[in-house]
Amino acid sequence: MIPINEEVKSFINNQREDYVDLLKQMVQRESLAGHEASVQDLVEERLNSNGLMVDRWELDYKQLSKHPEFCASRTDFEGSENVVGVWKGEGGGKSLILNGHVDVVPEGELDQWDKAPYSGEVKGGRLYGRGSTDMKGGNLASLIALEALKKTGVRLKGDVIFQSVVEEEAGGSGTLSTIERGYKADAALIPEPTNLAIFPVQQGSMWFKVHIYGKSAHGGTRYEGISAIEKAFKVNEAILSLERERNELLSRDLYDGNPIPVPINIGTINGGNWPSSVPDHLEMEGRMGVIPGEIPQQAKSEMEERLRKLSEQDEWFAEHPVKIEWFGARWLPGEIDENHPFLERLEESYTSHKGQAPVMKASPWGTDGGLLSTIGNIPTVVFGPGTTSEAHQPNESIELDAIFDCATIMADTILEWCEVAERKEE
Amino acid sequence: MIPINEEVKSFINNQREDYVDLLKQMVQRESLAGHEASVQDLVEERLNSNGLMVDRWELDYKQLSKHPEFCASRTDFEGSENVVGVWKGEGGGKSLILNGHVDVVPEGELDQWDKAPYSGEVKGGRLYGRGSTDMKGGNLASLIALEALKKTGVRLKGDVIFQSVVEEEAGGSGTLSTIERGYKADAALIPEPTNLAIFPVQQGSMWFKVHIYGKSAHGGTRYEGISAIEKAFKVNEAILSLERERNELLSRDLYDGNPIPVPINIGTINGGNWPSSVPDHLEMEGRMGVIPGEIPQQAKSEMEERLRKLSEQDEWFAEHPVKIEWFGARWLPGEIDENHPFLERLEESYTSHKGQAPVMKASPWGTDGGLLSTIGNIPTVVFGPGTTSEAHQPNESIELDAIFDCATIMADTILEWCEVAERKEE
Repeated sequence: MIPINEEVKSFINNQREDYVDLLKQMVQRESLAGHEASVQDLVEERLNSNGLMVDRWELDYKQLSKHPEFCASRTDFEGSENVVGVWKGEGGGKSLILNGHVDVVPEGELDQWDKAPYSGEVKGGRLYGRGSTDMKGGNLASLIALEALKKTGVRLKGDVIFQSVVEEEAGGSGTLSTIERGYKADAALIPEPTNLAIFPVQQGSMWFKVHIYGKSAHGGTRYEGISAIEKAFKVNEAILSLERERNELLSRDLYDGNPIPVPINIGTINGGNWPSSVPDHLEMEGRMGVIPGEIPQQAKSEMEERLRKLSEQDEWFAEHPVKIEWFGARWLPGEIDENHPFLERLEESYTSHKGQAPVMKASPWGTDGGLLSTIGNIPTVVFGPGTTSEAHQPNESIELDAIFDCATIMADTILEWCEVAERKEE
Repeated sequence: MIPINEEVKSFINNQREDYVDLLKQMVQRESLAGHEASVQDLVEERLNSNGLMVDRWELDYKQLSKHPEFCASRTDFEGSENVVGVWKGEGGGKSLILNGHVDVVPEGELDQWDKAPYSGEVKGGRLYGRGSTDMKGGNLASLIALEALKKTGVRLKGDVIFQSVVEEEAGGSGTLSTIERGYKADAALIPEPTNLAIFPVQQGSMWFKVHIYGKSAHGGTRYEGISAIEKAFKVNEAILSLERERNELLSRDLYDGNPIPVPINIGTINGGNWPSSVPDHLEMEGRMGVIPGEIPQQAKSEMEERLRKLSEQDEWFAEHPVKIEWFGARWLPGEIDENHPFLERLEESYTSHKGQAPVMKASPWGTDGGLLSTIGNIPTVVFGPGTTSEAHQPNESIELDAIFDCATIMADTILEWCEVAERKEE
């Protein structure tokens, strides 16, 4: 008799072509915020055909927006539905949530894409398209793991809960809704693109916008004005000094070799409206990392205080203080105990499949894992195919081999974590 | 018998109300680039009714664009016509050009205006509206001076050439066209808003755009990228250091007390497209002052060389050099000999009318005077009502008294410069 995990492996290997085709369909079904229905149809159909109990519901803005950790850029969720499939275990085992989002970020400038953004084209062992890495490839890995176990007749003691959620890219309302609906498990795994590293610790992040004021004047008498651009350089320095101080305090093995474990990034700058005028207003938008274990409000206060201090150092800022808004998306930080058995289980499955120990890292970005662990109290690990450098970029793509590696490791982890109850047709 | 200039003064005083109404009409006839016909109709009618020889023509793009100093943001001038009125003298006197532009700059953000931009409303001794200060108020002063002399029966020895031109705000194609058409005089006066100071020396200016490149990365791993914003700060420093060096070399009485006689202004900054991405491209637009007597190409080379030097100091710039474009408008510098008799004549008229010597300054901005003096070889002075601080601003307005002061001084200057031939009905 072939051991279960060998049978699972060979099932996965034999189905590669079909699964690549499925990923192609998933990518081709464009799923920007508000457009997730088509890809969720595909997921629902697949979960149904595997005999799972399927639950599909539209997010309730009115209800969700009452939650203190609610964060979204929309004011209604019409047409945005979560799909959850439950593979009920026989009992007596530990349960696991496989959580992944189907929403994708906008394509950006179309002329930076070599092919259409939703082509799903396969070339050189990679599949291309918006959402391939972030994170339909990861979602496929979860689905493969689940189907491989199902199709090879495995019966588990614990439940496996497959969550296909919306709204991750805008702050996690989809996952928040699964928590409010009562979904819970002994552990959760999110296959966001970690390049198959294991992220037991996740950085949170928040977006901000600073407004910097100047005084307009004709460029030919620019000494009569105050340039908001000049003032922005001082604001930038203040923000960098805060980043430096926050990171100097951080010390954990997971940050080894990382020059800035929890960065503050200034992503956009826009100011002035005429080449020959002194600019009197400027905006910079950025993203502040939230340290695992830190309460976001604490990070906000540190930033606000640093900007307030500028007014003590500079008369202009005293009279025209920098204003800060916290806008757009926000992700909570999260972490799992470093000795948690699920984390150990995942490490073992990885090592057994890959023949070497996994890379363990702190995530450089937030995921829905912050909500699952902080609000849902579900120990969560992030581990998936694809790389950060592909996410949100033009010509986004994913290495196909990594998806199948990930699926195999996930299937093995599920077998050991949820435990085998009995084998059908044995 | 009342001396001529007293008669002129009292004519002007008696017609104040009518002239305020005329300025109102001039402002109400919106004259953005390409829309100048309506206000030129009014000017033409007025010049005709004064018995001047009127010449009206559409600018010829094909012809003008061959000129080495041609500069425009348009590629045809359909509907944009100059109007010139010549008051032929009796002979034997010196001639004078009164040059003013009718084109106005865009209104900018409408919500920054308290009233409609072309209201022409009069309040508290000021008239409001786009173009009031820059420079329909000045054009009115020229017209009043001319009409006051005409209506009081003065006959001059020299010609007075009234030029109502288009395209000053975009680089002077209107005035270039008057030069190519053969208009010439012994001196020229441009009543741009100097706040009744006399500008014998005019700074030139050129617009530029610098492109600064970075390397994109996710904000959570920003150390993997290169921020175009951080690099922009270095470019800004380099430009400021060039400005400092260029101004240290300047020494003339006209610059006394001016902290930066010929500034380089950075007016706009725009870069990045996502709060949580490292920005890989940024643009800054600015305006470089050209020193009176300096050839614009020399100033350009200094800027280009300074940016090139960044590549010697910084590896990133060596591989990703800053690019510079010279775009949009450009004004040549200009100056009149400090002992030129026309300049002395204007000073005397000013002193006689105002009871004190005029303020003499170097202009902080370019005008069509650069073209008149450099290309047309016509000694040119800038002197007019209105202030720089109102030009191109929301709620632009002009002090009405200054227009009548200016007109009176201009009339007196014309009398003395062109000389009285004989008096009608004497």
